[in-house]
Amino acid sequence: MLITDMGFVSGQELKIRAKPSDDCNSFSINIGHDADNIALHFNPRFDLNGVTDTIVINCKSGGSWGEEQREENFPFTCGEESKFYINYNMECFYIKLPDGSMIDFPNRLGDVKYDYFRVDGMAQFIGFKMQ
Amino acid sequence: MLITDMGFVSGQELKIRAKPSDDCNSFSINIGHDADNIALHFNPRFDLNGVTDTIVINCKSGGSWGEEQREENFPFTCGEESKFYINYNMECFYIKLPDGSMIDFPNRLGDVKYDYFRVDGMAQFIGFKMQ
Repeated sequence: MLITDMGFVSGQELKIRAKPSDDCNSFSINIGHDADNIALHFNPRFDLNGVTDTIVINCKSGGSWGEEQREENFPFTCGEESKFYINYNMECFYIKLPDGSMIDFPNRLGDVKYDYFRVDGMAQFIGFKMQ
Repeated sequence: MLITDMGFVSGQELKIRAKPSDDCNSFSINIGHDADNIALHFNPRFDLNGVTDTIVINCKSGGSWGEEQREENFPFTCGEESKFYINYNMECFYIKLPDGSMIDFPNRLGDVKYDYFRVDGMAQFIGFKMQ
């Protein structure tokens, strides 16, 4: 799913509903300006390239990935719908996971409006609410 | 808001949340294959080109508009969030309006999967849920 004029601005809350497939190895939510400039790459990996049950978070600037952050709390289950929430400001993204726990990741691109939104991988994107 | 790989298939229900602006004259939801091939153009007009408080529904095929359908039941209010629901099959679209009433419109393109989804006009697109 690709949205090219999302208009997600700092201070808004984005609620995302996604359902990893029964045999999901990985899916990702990508928020930024375009495919080469992603402020938030949020990538739950069930089992991908030797990484299991880990959330990998990163950003991409001018086509180059930044420094990865890994979270071992993994409240996602194959075949089960997940709800999670994303907020951000100029400094930081705040992500509320399906179990209610919070993680954060620096907003390295430092912008306050992102129009590019892409869901990749083995999950059905059920919907979002942005307010 | 433009989504180019929506994957909205016959039998699914699409719930849409949109908030017409305080001075909204018109907004539209467009579902189809591309800008020239729209199976459902759903266009609540508060006050546009002499048409007031009317839902205009149409389709576009190969760049040409079809025959318009007009509904005078108009359960939309400027500045207030609206929820409505769209279902369809090969023959027909079924739209449940914010007041719970139903309208239908022929699925003249006759397809069972539409990837193009666009919201135009003076409304904030708050979100959707597709299941």
